[in-house]
Amino acid sequence: MNKISSSTQDAGNSIVWLELHNRTMERERLIDKPNSSHRYGGRSSMTDDDDILDITTDSDGSFLDDPITPAGRGGRGSAADSDSFDGLGTAGQYDDFHTIDWARDMQRYRKEFKVVNRRQGESFGGRIRAAFYAGSAWLVVLFVGVITGIFAGIIDIGATWLSDLKFGLCRDAFWLNWEQCCWAQNTTQFGNLNDITCPTWYQWYEFLGFENQDAGAYVLSYSVFVVTSLLMAAFAVLLVLVFAPYACGSGIPEIKTILSGFIMRGFLGKWTLLIKSITMVLVVGAGLSLGKEGPLVHLACCCGNLMAHMIPKYAKNEAKKREMLSAASAAGVSVAFGAPIGGVLFSLEEISYYFPLKTLWRSFFCAMVAAFVLQSINPFGNDHAVRFYVEYNTPWFFFEIIPFILLGIFGGLYGVVFNKLNLKWSKLRMTSRLGYYPITEVLLVTLATALLSYPNPYSRLNTSQLIAALFKECGPQDAIGFCDYNRTYSRVDQRWYPSALAQNGVIDALWQLPLAMVLQGILTIFTFGMKVPAGLFIPTMAVGAIGGRMLGIAMEQLAVYHPDLWIFTGCFYDGKCITPGLYAMVGAAATLGGVTRMTISLVVIMFELTGGLTYIVPLMIACMVSKWVADAFGKDGIYDGHIHLNGYPFLDSKREFMHTTLASDVMSPRRNDPPLFTITMDSMTVEELENLTTETLFNTYPVIISKDSQRLVGVVYRRELIHALKQARKNKSEAVSQSKVYFTSQVPKFPVPGIPPHLSLVNILDASPVTITDQTPMSIVVDMFVKLGIRTCLVTHNGRLLGIISKKDVLRHKAYLDNQDPFSIFFH
Amino acid sequence: MNKISSSTQDAGNSIVWLELHNRTMERERLIDKPNSSHRYGGRSSMTDDDDILDITTDSDGSFLDDPITPAGRGGRGSAADSDSFDGLGTAGQYDDFHTIDWARDMQRYRKEFKVVNRRQGESFGGRIRAAFYAGSAWLVVLFVGVITGIFAGIIDIGATWLSDLKFGLCRDAFWLNWEQCCWAQNTTQFGNLNDITCPTWYQWYEFLGFENQDAGAYVLSYSVFVVTSLLMAAFAVLLVLVFAPYACGSGIPEIKTILSGFIMRGFLGKWTLLIKSITMVLVVGAGLSLGKEGPLVHLACCCGNLMAHMIPKYAKNEAKKREMLSAASAAGVSVAFGAPIGGVLFSLEEISYYFPLKTLWRSFFCAMVAAFVLQSINPFGNDHAVRFYVEYNTPWFFFEIIPFILLGIFGGLYGVVFNKLNLKWSKLRMTSRLGYYPITEVLLVTLATALLSYPNPYSRLNTSQLIAALFKECGPQDAIGFCDYNRTYSRVDQRWYPSALAQNGVIDALWQLPLAMVLQGILTIFTFGMKVPAGLFIPTMAVGAIGGRMLGIAMEQLAVYHPDLWIFTGCFYDGKCITPGLYAMVGAAATLGGVTRMTISLVVIMFELTGGLTYIVPLMIACMVSKWVADAFGKDGIYDGHIHLNGYPFLDSKREFMHTTLASDVMSPRRNDPPLFTITMDSMTVEELENLTTETLFNTYPVIISKDSQRLVGVVYRRELIHALKQARKNKSEAVSQSKVYFTSQVPKFPVPGIPPHLSLVNILDASPVTITDQTPMSIVVDMFVKLGIRTCLVTHNGRLLGIISKKDVLRHKAYLDNQDPFSIFFH
Repeated sequence: MNKISSSTQDAGNSIVWLELHNRTMERERLIDKPNSSHRYGGRSSMTDDDDILDITTDSDGSFLDDPITPAGRGGRGSAADSDSFDGLGTAGQYDDFHTIDWARDMQRYRKEFKVVNRRQGESFGGRIRAAFYAGSAWLVVLFVGVITGIFAGIIDIGATWLSDLKFGLCRDAFWLNWEQCCWAQNTTQFGNLNDITCPTWYQWYEFLGFENQDAGAYVLSYSVFVVTSLLMAAFAVLLVLVFAPYACGSGIPEIKTILSGFIMRGFLGKWTLLIKSITMVLVVGAGLSLGKEGPLVHLACCCGNLMAHMIPKYAKNEAKKREMLSAASAAGVSVAFGAPIGGVLFSLEEISYYFPLKTLWRSFFCAMVAAFVLQSINPFGNDHAVRFYVEYNTPWFFFEIIPFILLGIFGGLYGVVFNKLNLKWSKLRMTSRLGYYPITEVLLVTLATALLSYPNPYSRLNTSQLIAALFKECGPQDAIGFCDYNRTYSRVDQRWYPSALAQNGVIDALWQLPLAMVLQGILTIFTFGMKVPAGLFIPTMAVGAIGGRMLGIAMEQLAVYHPDLWIFTGCFYDGKCITPGLYAMVGAAATLGGVTRMTISLVVIMFELTGGLTYIVPLMIACMVSKWVADAFGKDGIYDGHIHLNGYPFLDSKREFMHTTLASDVMSPRRNDPPLFTITMDSMTVEELENLTTETLFNTYPVIISKDSQRLVGVVYRRELIHALKQARKNKSEAVSQSKVYFTSQVPKFPVPGIPPHLSLVNILDASPVTITDQTPMSIVVDMFVKLGIRTCLVTHNGRLLGIISKKDVLRHKAYLDNQDPFSIFFH
Repeated sequence: MNKISSSTQDAGNSIVWLELHNRTMERERLIDKPNSSHRYGGRSSMTDDDDILDITTDSDGSFLDDPITPAGRGGRGSAADSDSFDGLGTAGQYDDFHTIDWARDMQRYRKEFKVVNRRQGESFGGRIRAAFYAGSAWLVVLFVGVITGIFAGIIDIGATWLSDLKFGLCRDAFWLNWEQCCWAQNTTQFGNLNDITCPTWYQWYEFLGFENQDAGAYVLSYSVFVVTSLLMAAFAVLLVLVFAPYACGSGIPEIKTILSGFIMRGFLGKWTLLIKSITMVLVVGAGLSLGKEGPLVHLACCCGNLMAHMIPKYAKNEAKKREMLSAASAAGVSVAFGAPIGGVLFSLEEISYYFPLKTLWRSFFCAMVAAFVLQSINPFGNDHAVRFYVEYNTPWFFFEIIPFILLGIFGGLYGVVFNKLNLKWSKLRMTSRLGYYPITEVLLVTLATALLSYPNPYSRLNTSQLIAALFKECGPQDAIGFCDYNRTYSRVDQRWYPSALAQNGVIDALWQLPLAMVLQGILTIFTFGMKVPAGLFIPTMAVGAIGGRMLGIAMEQLAVYHPDLWIFTGCFYDGKCITPGLYAMVGAAATLGGVTRMTISLVVIMFELTGGLTYIVPLMIACMVSKWVADAFGKDGIYDGHIHLNGYPFLDSKREFMHTTLASDVMSPRRNDPPLFTITMDSMTVEELENLTTETLFNTYPVIISKDSQRLVGVVYRRELIHALKQARKNKSEAVSQSKVYFTSQVPKFPVPGIPPHLSLVNILDASPVTITDQTPMSIVVDMFVKLGIRTCLVTHNGRLLGIISKKDVLRHKAYLDNQDPFSIFFH
């Protein structure tokens, strides 16, 4: 028997992502810290001191010494189908980078539930325990909500302070940001904070005695801006690389993969939580083209994971734990946008994999609590959880649907271009030497961002401040450029109304805003994917909001100059016809839709930002058009793109499998492959089985009646088999090399003299493997993998074992078919 | 071989619901109309002329003459597992009261999709067809939305007019309702319309010359009120019984069952739509204690079904059609409450069974369109889709959580009591002679309602008007009793505020409102389930709103009399501390939660009624508490209760199966039962098979290799087998009685002289049945039934066929276990 590395059954078969991770690991070594790589690579994380808080717990350490996945060390990936110890009754346990078996985990939960439930009648303690067992989920989501809200509040406050620090300092109370500092001065107009002075806030040049108009002041401000940005970014990237490599990026692709049943130790650990929180404040403060919304989802999931670890029901059951993570991700979006319902729908639509109804309700509770806590903290002083809350309620008119559709098309096209370029750049980073210099990359991008942003008053603003300004309606007190209107009264519709003729500020904005938009778009391509925490929502929204605002200004001026045009008949409501802020909002929704391909959750998030049903139709039109346009060029959103790019074993549960292939086309062994390695029910010896486990690396061995009949009895899992054989060897009396091993309860009753004693391992036989026939359509097989959460299934023909299909085979087959038939995505 | 009627395999085994339906059928005969029963009972509906618009189409009539379910006629139920013609390539087709096979239908859709997709490259016409094929879903939901909105608008307007007709008539323009009639008079105060006079509106007594204060006027008004109510109710019940027996009730339990894959011909047909619309106006006008919200969902689903029938992709595929019905049900709730997001969540949480992501987005679109259309129709003249829209936005205070929790407890307890009593009464109606007199029953209940309602000014109001009044904040102009406040200014918190001391009207309300509440509660018990369209939402909300308003008034008076109590510190906001209308809203949410056990959808519906996030925390607290309290007495909401009561074959997809039984405990044959009837692959003759099909009534025959080996090859469906044998008999040359039938491709190549020619039926063999082993936990089996949508699965042991499990077996097993272990519902 040779070492086999053919497809399915092989635990040693490499898959892309692990190679990539090993490459990352090598790169991390450049920083030359002994623990910098401890979160990467097969088994090494098992010695990690925060294992207890990691996504899986190695509570039962006795099996850790088995050479289960030696291939993981050598750089070859371990198979997606791992093994658990259900047969032995211990807690289910998975290796790093393995896939969990939902069906088996849930079965384990049901058994546990039954036990707790049965005991509740026995004693008072039992009843208390049962009540706690039942109520613990609510406790967990309550705490997750509270903690997520607090974290979000701290991050919001910190990021605002750090952003303002690039411009100056509150002399009397350095811990106040510009707005709070100037609060009492009654100068809290909206605008560029460089243009407005208040006595207590000192710009940096004022410390050196320069005047506002000096060239020296400009140079100094510029330099301080660039240098502080660079310092913050450098600090952030160092923190990430040294302490928590998983803290980079938005985290959403990984969370999607984890929720689909993948194990990534440390990704949701306490170090990731801590470091990501700190670095997020730093990078937002540094003014990089990124947002904190995606990372907030990651942070919320970290909280969820840490909380779940305190309740045994969740700590020991990966499938149940994922229910909590779904709820936590809803809380993350809830605090990011102050939108609890949108958060739940985001979790449902975009992130979660398995979403039973009770999770929906708990998610909602969790999201509500988080939003409530954040609103009570009131980080922006506007009584809302977000900065860009929309207050106005002016009606829109039917003819405006045309510009909204245009914005939808713009958003869809932007999404396609952005996704393509960002994925290309990310791929280049992965495959070229570029990836070896993460610190240099961050510094260069920060330098470019700071240098290019400062001259443009709109780019210079904190991105979420810019979005807030773009969403707002201009009032006479607004100092920002595009609010520079000549508000004289003019006669419209037989009455006098304030008209809004554009003045210099608006005209300047017409070239400054597009520049800011292009800059934002290009910088985001390079920023998203660097080794710092980086969300996409805010920069994408900024691009759309600028585009929308400009269209809105154009429409508004058209209405002001030509109020008698037929389309504007009946349009003027209280003297206003067009609300440019609404266009900005619609544009933001459209670009976001194009990039992420969210649908209902996006509309609801935007709806919750406006707090009323008034604008739901415009938002929906923009989102629908944007999604349709973008989908015409490929169905993948940016998160799916990064999942594919990273090669995560993610089997999409939300898209239907539309092909008509059969199980026999997918199963291994393929034609001309060597046959499957099987175990016979009652004729193999201990030695033969030991040889089998050392010479092959399969995780699952089918058990058949005999080599002749090939009738399937069940399966045996590698880990359990090795353990059982070891145990048997320890008790010498039980087994010798020539002992026959029985995987059936029909064993010879009495030892026969001359024949070595037999060994019964029927207890580790899993007699209920999922089986299908070779003629089963793959669509049903995919359904089984996705909906039942199985890892492998066995293929039979007329009761005889033919082959095996693993999740990996399904993924490979899907990828192959999608490449074959790219147009299939259009029509369903 | 005898006729077998043992459990699973038997198509003739009766299940409860069909017996009940047959009883209903008998009852319908009392009306003595020849077509009154045509929608009941097994096959008779096949001759119905509106089959094309029914839930299934018998487009392929050639098989209708086969005596497939003769048992259905004799009063014995046909089995839940029916058969389709996939093997023969014709459209899948199911009998009335049968269950569909989701997996097979979806597989058929995928094949069709593949064909359309492949053809699109071939010609321009093909491309157009493919584009239409892809876009038709959006067309359908668009039209469903528009039509649902229009229907809802007409019903709203009609019901208001009829309601007011009981009191009087607009003399100058009889088609106007009271509000529209008095519009110009500037007397559209809110209040009891008997108390306010406007010159153009004539009360009935005015036509006869009585004065307002006359005793004769009162008697006359009372009499007219009672008589018109009786007339409307009588007309409604006659219409229902004569033309569309399915138009009664709320329809939600049946829609849930239909969406879970059940066939009920005519339930969503055009007659049901028409008659239910008309009778809904009548019964709401008659002032019965019922609402139009549930029936609106039924109407929307009728629209969805009719629309889906125009698109072949949906008309011929029951599984796909149900996606449209899910979207339509969202539109129904959307127009009922003006809550599109709430509608989608209601469809997701309560109604739908299989809800893929794209359905979510389409449902949202459909619900939005419907709400938009209804809002444009503006049936209540308030720019909103519902009458009880809430305009205020005053804050609530933390200490108010305690009364909100109390309201939650009240709502939960009310839900338990109401459900129990209503189900008891419904059962009595079903099992006693009461059920034979539907018209008398309706007339008696209407008489009682009218007689008891008139004297109480609150009961006399149209229920949704009452709710609107209870939800509102009292203004000085409100004439209704509980708004009778002495609005003097008093000193609170160092400032002068308008206080709100209760006056006579409020004090009268304190006994009139409880009376109205009790009356409403009791009448609803008897009303819900009668043979008229009847929704639960409005009467349930009314009970809760009255309870809440009373608690609100009590709290308010406490605050007014004791403004210095420590709990009220910092409470007075703009002179107001307590908003009694908010209490009414919270109370309504609580009772609705207790009765229906909705969670997130209820909160979102109420949230959309208020249009802001302000009150979402109070609403959530009330809903959570109400659900917890009610769940402590049993998990079933009223709709589940009626599903069980009617014995519909509904396998709940939303509740986990928490037991630890095995497949071998459920499968048939049970121990001591005769063995399964099987077909051997290559040794049975045409005659033997014909005998098998005539002597047994099974829908599924497993095919095995031989009686000795029992190894499973596949399954053959009854309908296809009968058809194939008939076809073979027609071509005499092909088969004689002694011909061997082969269900394998390995057949003798050349005819042997002396042996009759063989018949190959491998084309009707389904070689991919879902199989499990006997050791598989039932939780996984239930998951397979629910998530994969299968109808039967085969049980094997070591590759040999052991037995079979049908959906019916699973339902029976679940019911058995739930009875065994009633406390299991508590802890998950």
